[in-house]
Amino acid sequence: MRFISKNRTITHFSANMEPITDVRLQETITVETHDCYGGQIDSETVLRPDINLETMNQATGPIYVNGVEKGDVLQIDIEEIELDPRGIMVTSKGLGVLGDHIEEPTTKILPVKEGRICFKEDFIFPVRPMIGVIGVAPASGSVHCASPGDHGGNLDTKDITIGSKLYFPVFQDGALFALGDLHASMGDGELDGTGVEIGGRTTLTVRAVKGGTLEAPVVETADSFMFLASAKTLDEAIRKGSKHVVGHLQQELSLEFQEAYRLLSMLCDVRISQIVNPLVTVRIVVPKELLPRLFKK
Amino acid sequence: MRFISKNRTITHFSANMEPITDVRLQETITVETHDCYGGQIDSETVLRPDINLETMNQATGPIYVNGVEKGDVLQIDIEEIELDPRGIMVTSKGLGVLGDHIEEPTTKILPVKEGRICFKEDFIFPVRPMIGVIGVAPASGSVHCASPGDHGGNLDTKDITIGSKLYFPVFQDGALFALGDLHASMGDGELDGTGVEIGGRTTLTVRAVKGGTLEAPVVETADSFMFLASAKTLDEAIRKGSKHVVGHLQQELSLEFQEAYRLLSMLCDVRISQIVNPLVTVRIVVPKELLPRLFKK
Repeated sequence: MRFISKNRTITHFSANMEPITDVRLQETITVETHDCYGGQIDSETVLRPDINLETMNQATGPIYVNGVEKGDVLQIDIEEIELDPRGIMVTSKGLGVLGDHIEEPTTKILPVKEGRICFKEDFIFPVRPMIGVIGVAPASGSVHCASPGDHGGNLDTKDITIGSKLYFPVFQDGALFALGDLHASMGDGELDGTGVEIGGRTTLTVRAVKGGTLEAPVVETADSFMFLASAKTLDEAIRKGSKHVVGHLQQELSLEFQEAYRLLSMLCDVRISQIVNPLVTVRIVVPKELLPRLFKK
Repeated sequence: MRFISKNRTITHFSANMEPITDVRLQETITVETHDCYGGQIDSETVLRPDINLETMNQATGPIYVNGVEKGDVLQIDIEEIELDPRGIMVTSKGLGVLGDHIEEPTTKILPVKEGRICFKEDFIFPVRPMIGVIGVAPASGSVHCASPGDHGGNLDTKDITIGSKLYFPVFQDGALFALGDLHASMGDGELDGTGVEIGGRTTLTVRAVKGGTLEAPVVETADSFMFLASAKTLDEAIRKGSKHVVGHLQQELSLEFQEAYRLLSMLCDVRISQIVNPLVTVRIVVPKELLPRLFKK
């Protein structure tokens, strides 16, 4: 199995970025990634205000997928996530929903071993590995890896984890995907501004869905399709995601708008992925039985 | 077991409201409730603009709990929810997150039978019963039953269901609780502005926690304590709930602010209950093992 090292990364997802390598459809690869600070925080004496934020959330790639064209849907199956032996959680003035309560920044290094995070003595928690940044080349321009969007990017969605399938709209031939910013654990919202930030290796398989239509990334779990939507405010993101879901329900089930809207309200959950990035991200969780033919065109 | 009929209801939770009856601690009672429209919508020809909104979300009660005093915590264990044989879903211009797409209001009556909701032919879904409105007398003034707050009220939280335990701050002697507005099903967010609105009978047991401190309602499920927070915007509600949770984590685990803030971000989820009432409601979901002594004073 091919191994893509973390020595070539991007700081932006750009429409015209150059691939570092290519893969074929159905190929399984392992991609090594930095923690979101790019290794700059190597002890508890290095604080967030000390580091260069321009390279934050750098992603390994981009990787060109042979056989995927603009207008297709790129499918990425997450097979495995192996974590480095230590994670990082910083606090800093203004960071997260209660950041105004913080005066002095702090850095905490958390040992991660045998599937467990040592927060402190008697505070040991199981890892819940996830990928913070994953995306494809956008339709135009350039988006910093710290921000999410319709191309993916810093989605910080905890369901982007082992066993999930991800679907991205393909805006450029070859899709040009990249990933980074693993977390050993993070709650919905990422409320203090960080997860347990960590480097590692993700094993994934790439596939293509031809003839699909997708506005923004979707995560498939055992039970659900989760439609991700990123926007400036939670209200905007919820509205955007709701529109996408109602559109898919109407199309797939041949329903009028108001009937699809009722199903949305009765059976679908809006969940918050993160509220601490330049755009916030929500997901609308749709039970799979409502969309049995999605991505099976 | 005592049965409290739906013939005496309130439209407001008020500090000085008069009880319709009283119960003793540990008593189990069944409370009958109207659907949120108070039975005004009895066919698909009755539309939302036709009805009187002043009595919307009326709640059966208030019920005085003997032995509960101001400053205690009222515990309500939800044992059973029996639903009437039909639910209602309306749409109307401006209602819900995509209400601007609606011109003509519609009403849909949904048969509910043997634990299933018939949405239409080939669209049959299991019921997920929940209580929309449940609360106690507020500290002062009067709050319409259509609005949520620290006293409870229109919380529209789907985890307020069979098997859950609810905890309310007690602002007045006897707590004076009331409930109504059942839903046969509703997704997080209540995105079109309604669940499957329905009447029914809730069986519950009342208890008291002495010496507890609580700012706003908490729902206990099998795995979690969910701290509810209602406010004008999602951002405010999330901030308010986060403060409550960090305070409880600090107190119970003897942690400094920044350590409790990290646990919040690493292990707790923010979830949206509803975004369609006069105040929105979120819940911060805390794994039970983080607060093993909560309500066990």
